[in-house]
Amino acid sequence: MNSSNQYREEYDTLGKIMVPKEAYYGSQTQRAVDNFQISGLRFPRSLIRVQGIIKASAALAHMEIGKLSPEMGGAIIAASEEVIEGKWDDQFVIDVYQAGAGTSQNMNANEVIANRASEILGRSQENRVHPNDHVNMSQSTNDTFHAAINIAAAENLVHKLLPAISQLELELDRKAEEFMPILKSGRTHLHDAVPIRLGQEFSGFADTIKSCRQQIERNLDVLYEIGLGGSAIGTKMNTASGYTPKVIKEICNRTKLPFREPSNLFGFTQNTNAAFRTVLSLKELAIHLIKITSDLRLLSSGPRTGLAEITLPSVQPGSTIMPGKVNPAILEMTHMVCCQVIGYETAISTAGIAGQLEINVMMPVIAHTLLQSIDLLSNAIPTLITKCVSGIQANEEICKNWMEASLALVTALSPKLGYDLASQIGKQADEENKPIKQVLLEKGMLTEELEKLLDPRSMV
Amino acid sequence: MNSSNQYREEYDTLGKIMVPKEAYYGSQTQRAVDNFQISGLRFPRSLIRVQGIIKASAALAHMEIGKLSPEMGGAIIAASEEVIEGKWDDQFVIDVYQAGAGTSQNMNANEVIANRASEILGRSQENRVHPNDHVNMSQSTNDTFHAAINIAAAENLVHKLLPAISQLELELDRKAEEFMPILKSGRTHLHDAVPIRLGQEFSGFADTIKSCRQQIERNLDVLYEIGLGGSAIGTKMNTASGYTPKVIKEICNRTKLPFREPSNLFGFTQNTNAAFRTVLSLKELAIHLIKITSDLRLLSSGPRTGLAEITLPSVQPGSTIMPGKVNPAILEMTHMVCCQVIGYETAISTAGIAGQLEINVMMPVIAHTLLQSIDLLSNAIPTLITKCVSGIQANEEICKNWMEASLALVTALSPKLGYDLASQIGKQADEENKPIKQVLLEKGMLTEELEKLLDPRSMV
Amino acid sequence: MNSSNQYREEYDTLGKIMVPKEAYYGSQTQRAVDNFQISGLRFPRSLIRVQGIIKASAALAHMEIGKLSPEMGGAIIAASEEVIEGKWDDQFVIDVYQAGAGTSQNMNANEVIANRASEILGRSQENRVHPNDHVNMSQSTNDTFHAAINIAAAENLVHKLLPAISQLELELDRKAEEFMPILKSGRTHLHDAVPIRLGQEFSGFADTIKSCRQQIERNLDVLYEIGLGGSAIGTKMNTASGYTPKVIKEICNRTKLPFREPSNLFGFTQNTNAAFRTVLSLKELAIHLIKITSDLRLLSSGPRTGLAEITLPSVQPGSTIMPGKVNPAILEMTHMVCCQVIGYETAISTAGIAGQLEINVMMPVIAHTLLQSIDLLSNAIPTLITKCVSGIQANEEICKNWMEASLALVTALSPKLGYDLASQIGKQADEENKPIKQVLLEKGMLTEELEKLLDPRSMV
Amino acid sequence: MNSSNQYREEYDTLGKIMVPKEAYYGSQTQRAVDNFQISGLRFPRSLIRVQGIIKASAALAHMEIGKLSPEMGGAIIAASEEVIEGKWDDQFVIDVYQAGAGTSQNMNANEVIANRASEILGRSQENRVHPNDHVNMSQSTNDTFHAAINIAAAENLVHKLLPAISQLELELDRKAEEFMPILKSGRTHLHDAVPIRLGQEFSGFADTIKSCRQQIERNLDVLYEIGLGGSAIGTKMNTASGYTPKVIKEICNRTKLPFREPSNLFGFTQNTNAAFRTVLSLKELAIHLIKITSDLRLLSSGPRTGLAEITLPSVQPGSTIMPGKVNPAILEMTHMVCCQVIGYETAISTAGIAGQLEINVMMPVIAHTLLQSIDLLSNAIPTLITKCVSGIQANEEICKNWMEASLALVTALSPKLGYDLASQIGKQADEENKPIKQVLLEKGMLTEELEKLLDPRSMV
Repeated sequence: MNSSNQYREEYDTLGKIMVPKEAYYGSQTQRAVDNFQISGLRFPRSLIRVQGIIKASAALAHMEIGKLSPEMGGAIIAASEEVIEGKWDDQFVIDVYQAGAGTSQNMNANEVIANRASEILGRSQENRVHPNDHVNMSQSTNDTFHAAINIAAAENLVHKLLPAISQLELELDRKAEEFMPILKSGRTHLHDAVPIRLGQEFSGFADTIKSCRQQIERNLDVLYEIGLGGSAIGTKMNTASGYTPKVIKEICNRTKLPFREPSNLFGFTQNTNAAFRTVLSLKELAIHLIKITSDLRLLSSGPRTGLAEITLPSVQPGSTIMPGKVNPAILEMTHMVCCQVIGYETAISTAGIAGQLEINVMMPVIAHTLLQSIDLLSNAIPTLITKCVSGIQANEEICKNWMEASLALVTALSPKLGYDLASQIGKQADEENKPIKQVLLEKGMLTEELEKLLDPRSMV
Repeated sequence: MNSSNQYREEYDTLGKIMVPKEAYYGSQTQRAVDNFQISGLRFPRSLIRVQGIIKASAALAHMEIGKLSPEMGGAIIAASEEVIEGKWDDQFVIDVYQAGAGTSQNMNANEVIANRASEILGRSQENRVHPNDHVNMSQSTNDTFHAAINIAAAENLVHKLLPAISQLELELDRKAEEFMPILKSGRTHLHDAVPIRLGQEFSGFADTIKSCRQQIERNLDVLYEIGLGGSAIGTKMNTASGYTPKVIKEICNRTKLPFREPSNLFGFTQNTNAAFRTVLSLKELAIHLIKITSDLRLLSSGPRTGLAEITLPSVQPGSTIMPGKVNPAILEMTHMVCCQVIGYETAISTAGIAGQLEINVMMPVIAHTLLQSIDLLSNAIPTLITKCVSGIQANEEICKNWMEASLALVTALSPKLGYDLASQIGKQADEENKPIKQVLLEKGMLTEELEKLLDPRSMV
Repeated sequence: MNSSNQYREEYDTLGKIMVPKEAYYGSQTQRAVDNFQISGLRFPRSLIRVQGIIKASAALAHMEIGKLSPEMGGAIIAASEEVIEGKWDDQFVIDVYQAGAGTSQNMNANEVIANRASEILGRSQENRVHPNDHVNMSQSTNDTFHAAINIAAAENLVHKLLPAISQLELELDRKAEEFMPILKSGRTHLHDAVPIRLGQEFSGFADTIKSCRQQIERNLDVLYEIGLGGSAIGTKMNTASGYTPKVIKEICNRTKLPFREPSNLFGFTQNTNAAFRTVLSLKELAIHLIKITSDLRLLSSGPRTGLAEITLPSVQPGSTIMPGKVNPAILEMTHMVCCQVIGYETAISTAGIAGQLEINVMMPVIAHTLLQSIDLLSNAIPTLITKCVSGIQANEEICKNWMEASLALVTALSPKLGYDLASQIGKQADEENKPIKQVLLEKGMLTEELEKLLDPRSMV
Repeated sequence: MNSSNQYREEYDTLGKIMVPKEAYYGSQTQRAVDNFQISGLRFPRSLIRVQGIIKASAALAHMEIGKLSPEMGGAIIAASEEVIEGKWDDQFVIDVYQAGAGTSQNMNANEVIANRASEILGRSQENRVHPNDHVNMSQSTNDTFHAAINIAAAENLVHKLLPAISQLELELDRKAEEFMPILKSGRTHLHDAVPIRLGQEFSGFADTIKSCRQQIERNLDVLYEIGLGGSAIGTKMNTASGYTPKVIKEICNRTKLPFREPSNLFGFTQNTNAAFRTVLSLKELAIHLIKITSDLRLLSSGPRTGLAEITLPSVQPGSTIMPGKVNPAILEMTHMVCCQVIGYETAISTAGIAGQLEINVMMPVIAHTLLQSIDLLSNAIPTLITKCVSGIQANEEICKNWMEASLALVTALSPKLGYDLASQIGKQADEENKPIKQVLLEKGMLTEELEKLLDPRSMV
């Protein structure tokens, strides 16, 4: 298998290295493969695609400013298009836990595109398209891989996660409307509270999700800053004149998203703040999704030993030992995804602290966990909608029964009787295990207006 | 000391309780004091002040809509003004780790203001100003204490933290300008990188801090939503008609900040998202402050055994055993404050997950850690500015020496020679322990244009 | 106020500094006070006490090996004893957010003890007891303050937290025994599960707490390693010969705890692993306390709108607007304390990453948050026991009702009927809203053995 | 593709479901596949293997106590052996983000083994080996999947991670010995400190890693508790008499690890504390690995613009734009893995809080992140050793130069001159930019003993 005719020799400053003969990637990719056998995980399609977009856009820019011939530039673009389409995904072979800054990942793209472009042009090794001199022209890993993270994250947010969240809002709003006639007891501290409409509870869920979505949208702005042209450390060293606006314009054309130059290239290069701010907003969403999915589990607890105010769609048997059991599996999966996203935020913030001087070398782990966070939520939320939220049914009778038993109904008497007297009535109802109404009737208090005062519809 | 004449008897649904005779607070505060001897910490002045503002504003609103007589409303306002001014801070006696939702803290304000208002009016116990019926009218802890957190946080951000951050930006910008002539070596991965201006590095710091400030400002918007009038669970139960706009208007008058009703009262009441989003933006700031203060320590490392590119002002002796040692104490303190703020974010997000149904009872710990986070940063940053950043001096000669030795100067030759040949020269310079320029001269390469090519001013 | 007669002049390498005339502390403490106006928080009594113990122990060791005269050594010990007793707590005036490593805090002890010792001896400034040369002899902040953290943490764990946890175990065990006769429905995924005894649930709580306690005890071992004598960086530079075993022995005498030299002084000095490992075990406890207190709130939810299987003692009114409401306030406070401890763990681990080369300068924030974590739990747990757990009452009838309704009783039939058939019966019972038993009776299945099969006592 | 002849029909309480005709898994697995298209990730080989071990051990136990016939038991064991060997890994098809508690994952094992056992026995559907009644006999997901996590984690720790850590200790110890002759300057606060041997620094690294390893080993004890036989909620419902000791004994036989029954089945079932405690010890390791790898990067910083006290092996080119650059890629990868592990700890602790009543349903995400954490570290550490640590070279001359320049050498004079005078000399040396020795010579101080006093060998 290791026979020499299956490998070709390549050379770099560290000496000779054997690369699989058929591989489009080259020596630097191979060294990274050899160095990093860590997780078996690779960067996702969405990032490889963006690496292709950047390389194609850079080539176009260089053609326009005369730094690449139409022939070579055209070949680089053609090869990049194939990367964009996914034709060479199997040539992106480096573990996500790799060299700092993503140098290896950038070289993987450079080498695959350079070798494929050389092949397209039928060029020999001597006058080959060069991964660094041509494909990576005017670029450093520190601007190009960093930009790739931002672009991939923005695309995934705009095209996958944000629509999913909007859909969830819509579904929760629908449920809020559907459940608006259902009266039930509120609960604070898990204790009897004043009445509320089930639809009002759901409108709160919808509003919370909406607020999270708006925050993610607001934070897109910082993702749109991509420091292409800043080169290794923001000084534009070796960046071709005129390159930056052209490359960014082409990326905007291709993505239909409003990327732009950062206000300060040094700040951009020193940090990975866009990724960090994005994951913070994902954490915000995760925190609230945990709260909402926990509430839905509480409200649907039972069927016989819990609150049972709502019923969730059954999606699969729930126990290997308790026959007929059905669990809130979709909500639990969502909760677990949120735990993971919260964990990824910690990973990113731990990496975020590790920046030193001109750059933060932790970019690969930031890229992996950020894109994974977006992906997990983008897949979990549609499942949550279709297999759970949209099929939730209210158990009106049970809601009503809990409500009528609630001691907190005494609150309605407070404006009439004052807090102190109302408290005594509440206490008596508790001790005598009677409804509030009964205590009042027995005491002969407020008898005439009682029906009206204790009408829950007047309380919500 | 415990003699009966120093205490008065009060009663509530749980029975009799002894309250210090001179105390303005009452039974519910006393029960909380008895129940919670945990940390010895109390809520800060800024929160107590806001509690007073809300109570005064509520009383005014109720006077305007005829729910409180001018006499009683006036007395409540007068008592609240004293709370606002800080006259009764010593009457706010409950540990920050207290009953869920902040019920005790709200009652503390209600009781102090009610008793003081009764005193002002000379009223007897029988027709006293009542803490719940009058001072807390149209309010629940769940809307009023929650609103108090938002208002106190917003005020502290607007009046303390944001100006401090702006000042830090300004000072970093000044330093950026001052240090713009200083050429030095960049460093990526802590390894030789291409030249940069010291001022450019500082402009990156300034830009990063600016971006953090803008995010905090942007997130103020959610703090401005205060659900007053929503009552216990957002249903407006027992809220006087017309109360909400009036109370919010008066709070805006008093604070000069644009508070408003939330888009959805249920979403507001279920969560404490404003606090959470705020602390996330403080965490973002903390992450970057750690990065920047770590960089400043790295750049000032030495004086003889480190990079020594900059010198920090000496503020105090640095060692109990190594005479004459001076440490970057202000930067270290700032770093520690940031560790604390990051920890407080964890506390808040852990609390944020704990919301259940209509409310999140974790409000007291959220209030404490949020306000503490703002406070710590508000105090640390001015210290950072005046005792460190503003006095930083550049060591131009040292910067120059590092730069001229850097192997990364070879990057300038890359466009001429190509990446591969430039790599070999870089490697040779490393192995032979010579400057890049010397290797080229010895090889007779690029001799004519070498001065120009290797002029660092052309690289930045 | 600043008039010269209220201040004395002191000098150090930074020049003149004014110190309050009556202060026992000196110039370095004063500089730190001037530099650090951050939180207003001071280190606790327990740490100051340990600083005194170390200084007294060091003086004794130096007397024994002839490095301090009996006169001077005796005076240092006498002054240290006063520090130990708390006589000079008001002289420890530095903010907890201070210079890295705790240099200022160590100097505060050195200066107070030196000046007080000089006073005791009636010495003039010329031949005064010197804070560095005498009180800090053979010590560096890096070994002495680090050791002080370990000692104070160990003492607080052994004397406060561990007994409190043991007491909680005991109380939960008592409740487990008391509640062992109470049959109830188990719940998994918040859904009907097979029966369990309430006492079994509580025995699980007790066992979990026991496991946490044992882990904290196990982790004491690393706290017992104190690197006194290691000096600034573990090399024993300027440490008097014979000092180390003597100082540690005296500390053991005074604390009755088994402190010892670390296996490697460099590892000890580079890190603050003992603090970190300790706070991890506190986090473990906090995680489980949150789970248990959340369970107790769930089980006591109601009184009319929840599970209501248990009733908690009423400790205070629970709402400012809903009369008669009583909340699980003690459990909520405990949960909040746990959120805080979890946040402190994050602060410590964020600080833990910041170690560089010979030491980790983040020691002050580590000391503060570690001791605060122990303190909060040490105060919260006894409150949890006495005001909540010990007074929990079971509602046997309610437990029974839930249990008999549970669909999971069908599990008992599974061995007889097989999982598939049992599942169908469970499903039918659910759809027809009947008890399992009724469905079987109506189907005429297992009629003879039904009573026995469905006897919950046989299932637990 | 969906043509009927490629699928078979199966039925459960939710109705009909189509399963791929050739699949060994059945309806419940298929439902989970349909429900959970989230991450594309599957549980690792090591967990599937342990699922097989448990099923085989359970079958053996049931054969021994007469609950399974030799024929059926034998077939289950035979099928399980194939699972253990990895023959059916492609039949384990459920996303790691799946139904709570791991019910689906357990059913996947049950179904694959049951169907394969039926095939082995040539049984028809009517008298098939049943996934629940036979393969899952005496088991619940809540005991069996929970136990599987513990067993897989223990095996991976004992066989992979702990040996890797031991190897790292050994290599660091070797380096400590190799570098013991190298004198260098210590650095505290990144500032000049007293001399140290490079070998002493490395011995500190080795000792720290050793301490982490010992803690992981100590924490194995809790992983060895596996609650098999506890059934759904610890009550042993439907568990065959005699089963528990037999199944555990067989697991011990197969794994050669000392698993045992927990002290309390309810505590075990309520929590996932073993996983949590394990990941805390992995976090401890990660924190220290970050510190050590950061130190190595600092010490190797340069080659021309940093400390350059050590040189790391070159493993790959380090920049796409700066030719010849070589970065500390292996250290950076390790740091990123540690960020990930720290993030996974957050995921697990967030999941750990979510336990409710009888179980913690978050088991799948706990299993995934725990095993992933162990795996990442197990792969990263050997890479760290072989590609970095073992090849580190000391630059003795550079170490010496830094040391001789250090201002902290003045510490050696402190016992002679006192702290105050020594401080002045240190300050003067700093201001006049001279070595300590020169200042003393110029002042004519200590001239005779100077050589001896300032000999660094006497300081370490």
